Amino acid sequence: MIMSNLLTLDPWSLHPQLARDTIVIGDLALSRLLVVNDANWPWLLLVPRRQGASEIIDLDEVERAQLMTELARVARALKEVSACDKLNVAALGNVVPQLHVHVIARRSGDAGWPKPIWGATPPLPHDPRELDRFVTAIKRKVWITAEDS
Amino acid sequence: MIMSNLLTLDPWSLHPQLARDTIVIGDLALSRLLVVNDANWPWLLLVPRRQGASEIIDLDEVERAQLMTELARVARALKEVSACDKLNVAALGNVVPQLHVHVIARRSGDAGWPKPIWGATPPLPHDPRELDRFVTAIKRKVWITAEDS
Repeated sequence: MIMSNLLTLDPWSLHPQLARDTIVIGDLALSRLLVVNDANWPWLLLVPRRQGASEIIDLDEVERAQLMTELARVARALKEVSACDKLNVAALGNVVPQLHVHVIARRSGDAGWPKPIWGATPPLPHDPRELDRFVTAIKRKVWITAEDS
Repeated sequence: MIMSNLLTLDPWSLHPQLARDTIVIGDLALSRLLVVNDANWPWLLLVPRRQGASEIIDLDEVERAQLMTELARVARALKEVSACDKLNVAALGNVVPQLHVHVIARRSGDAGWPKPIWGATPPLPHDPRELDRFVTAIKRKVWITAEDS
């Protein structure tokens, strides 16, 4: 009862700019998983559903541990699905203050390589069928794979 | 004796480029804490002392939890010491493959704001006395503060 009241009162909602720039894949225990509308790179976001959190240290210790668990699960899924050379993981938030963690699959020779992706090149629209295949593959890895390590 | 043998056999060493670009602050249980030789921003690195680790998911589950604990401790210290507007946390590694986590204090209006710092502006040498004060303040917060949350 107390839990469900707390959940009802929780005013969290996805920041409008994140909502505009992404498609929802689904919710993990703590975070909403999103794919960014930019086909230059396989690019996911994890957004902890905690109202007012802007920094990782705004989460409490249990939430931070959960974020790391979810980050590892998502990073592993993205690495397997994309067969990338390197993952880029970042919580920046200089423009959109709502805490969000980028998980990006990089390949040697991709747009902007080896620089970080932000501002490297204009967004590229997704091919709807490729996006659908990508989201389906990520969902299968993130929600069906049981082990976390 | 066993410990000291293990330490002798541990082949981890700091990547030469990270060694060249930073000054050592000290070692946490898992990570070496460094300050980057660039006075444009208060800029720390956490480098887990695990040979061959390039991605966060190359660490095992216990090490990932420890990395999050150390990251939170360092981020809190940096936020307090710098009185920054925003922390930027990132594990990129497209150039230097050894796993390293950037923890950067940003201020509205700093060099490159609100863009990420990489490539924003040429490195600026530290004033040795300011650097010494900064390192002393970070050390005090990271090693003396007892609580992790």
